[in-house]
Amino acid sequence: MELTDPAVFAARRERLRARMAEADIPALLVTHAANRYYLSGFELFDSQCNESVGWLAILKDGRDLLMTDARFTDAAKRLWPQEDTLIYGAGKHKAMAEVLHGRGVRALAYDPKAVTVFDYDALREHFELAPASGLVEELRRVKEPAEIELLRAACGLNHRIMRALPDAMAPGMSEAEVAWIIERMFREAGAEGLSFPSIVGVDQNAALPHAIPGEAKVPREGLVLVDIGCRLAAYCSDQTRTFWVGRDPGERFQETKRLVMTAQKAGMAAVRPGAPIASAYHAARRVFEDAGCAHQFTHSLGHGIGLETHEGPSLGPNAEGAFVPGMVVTVEPGLYDPAWGGVRWEYMVVVTPDGCVPL
Amino acid sequence: MELTDPAVFAARRERLRARMAEADIPALLVTHAANRYYLSGFELFDSQCNESVGWLAILKDGRDLLMTDARFTDAAKRLWPQEDTLIYGAGKHKAMAEVLHGRGVRALAYDPKAVTVFDYDALREHFELAPASGLVEELRRVKEPAEIELLRAACGLNHRIMRALPDAMAPGMSEAEVAWIIERMFREAGAEGLSFPSIVGVDQNAALPHAIPGEAKVPREGLVLVDIGCRLAAYCSDQTRTFWVGRDPGERFQETKRLVMTAQKAGMAAVRPGAPIASAYHAARRVFEDAGCAHQFTHSLGHGIGLETHEGPSLGPNAEGAFVPGMVVTVEPGLYDPAWGGVRWEYMVVVTPDGCVPL
Repeated sequence: MELTDPAVFAARRERLRARMAEADIPALLVTHAANRYYLSGFELFDSQCNESVGWLAILKDGRDLLMTDARFTDAAKRLWPQEDTLIYGAGKHKAMAEVLHGRGVRALAYDPKAVTVFDYDALREHFELAPASGLVEELRRVKEPAEIELLRAACGLNHRIMRALPDAMAPGMSEAEVAWIIERMFREAGAEGLSFPSIVGVDQNAALPHAIPGEAKVPREGLVLVDIGCRLAAYCSDQTRTFWVGRDPGERFQETKRLVMTAQKAGMAAVRPGAPIASAYHAARRVFEDAGCAHQFTHSLGHGIGLETHEGPSLGPNAEGAFVPGMVVTVEPGLYDPAWGGVRWEYMVVVTPDGCVPL
Repeated sequence: MELTDPAVFAARRERLRARMAEADIPALLVTHAANRYYLSGFELFDSQCNESVGWLAILKDGRDLLMTDARFTDAAKRLWPQEDTLIYGAGKHKAMAEVLHGRGVRALAYDPKAVTVFDYDALREHFELAPASGLVEELRRVKEPAEIELLRAACGLNHRIMRALPDAMAPGMSEAEVAWIIERMFREAGAEGLSFPSIVGVDQNAALPHAIPGEAKVPREGLVLVDIGCRLAAYCSDQTRTFWVGRDPGERFQETKRLVMTAQKAGMAAVRPGAPIASAYHAARRVFEDAGCAHQFTHSLGHGIGLETHEGPSLGPNAEGAFVPGMVVTVEPGLYDPAWGGVRWEYMVVVTPDGCVPL
């Protein structure tokens, strides 16, 4: 189910090459793992954040170079012409320079947000370096139809789990137990893993934007905020629901939830082609302002999602640019009171020619 | 069970401060996630490799600064004095400069391997920057007694699973199914997660150093290489065994396994205080050389392990330095033939005053 057709990755590299030509960039070094995968299908993850499993050089003449170490020889062979593959050992930067100099490449654009000072210093012994941020990220913001279907499938697992949760969550279970049940459901439904650590927050814990599921128990009467996502065929999902467990949701929960849902709707209504991205945040916030509780809305409205849980565009108050069909973003307003709890509600939506629809 | 005593982290910062004084470093910026956690107990992971959840500044006068964003206000509050905590928004580098300048800090040492060019450029508008790599990593190489106990506990789960596997692996199960059974066993035994993606390789797949568990089936007669690890109370385990499934292991498997175990023993015998780290690799390799199969030993002998699966020291042929009591390293020789399969055997060992013992 994962995208494996080499033509998909080749087409992306051609789109990138067109952008590079516009920006007068003859060679671009790709170091960020998700960008590497997006352009090549080679390894979505680095082994550790401080241990890259490979880089790409995208060249004007189309003979793009894949560079990796001996552990990945076999994986590289399945994806890349051998004459355009460099298996490096200890002297990575030098080996890379030898190959690229041999092809007449002496100037490289690189992403300052994805290259360490150490690599920069080693590279500039061999290349003329010029910064170029966000070229690949810009392509990734607008999803291809096949990517949208994969995001829909990943989000579909969330829907399934959110439907099952009210029955699966029994009073007395700990947040950590609920989180493990959720993870098992994702995995047994075919997900490769979680797209981020699950948040399961009971009552006051729901007010913590980064609650680690702990020993707090699902109450007989109370709220449980669940913010979860999986990775399916490489693509991420992300969805929040806030459940009331018990018989009597009470005034405060119902009113808070009503406001959050209204803000959710207002935010989604602002997500349409051509509209400023920041307008979605402001539309949702206005609902809270009118109700006098905007101070309880403490984060941005959402973020792009795809090969990474957090990618462009960010739906904050100062977001630049406008929505474009094919963008997939989360819309997730929330209201929090540390002394009481919180309610957040989140859809993943895809921008369509005349608005947006939830996945 | 996780280390939570603030005194543990404070003592580490004092050891670091002593090293900083020796190296004439008045202020050190700590950006690598595992280093940050090691020194503070604050957040072992970044949300994504391109999304830090916070930095530390270790200062000569001991008023160390924790910097993070609003999502982690609550987590920071539990660990750090409020007057030494900076909650930053968009203008992170500037906000940081304001606080540190206010304390007379205008020069910062930083790790070129853990700072991007983007951050470097933003920081040098405010600070005089000097590179200083590996200061925290050097401390982390030698484990405290409590860390060794946590590594022993994590490795204990591996032993338990390796014992259960021969019965749990039935012929006809796919590598991916075996991998999921392993992950469930780890999690249900209390692990936070895997320390790296499990390798389960049947027959020829065992020769791939980076085999992704796939649809290949456990045979009625054949070999299965299993290289797995978990994270328990923040610390990592890593262990490889190669099983024969069926009744007749045959000459080749038995002879290969015998050689690998001999190399394993030779490697471990070379792990003792004062011995050059590279000597362990050479001792294991000599066994293969004497048997004429050294070309089938295609990777290094092992690596340090702790808060990260891969940390110092690396047990390669060109490793520098000597073993020190308290180091915990893997010893994992292997022999591979793509046409046949492979055998790897791995222990995690701790260096003791007079040699090493397996965990």
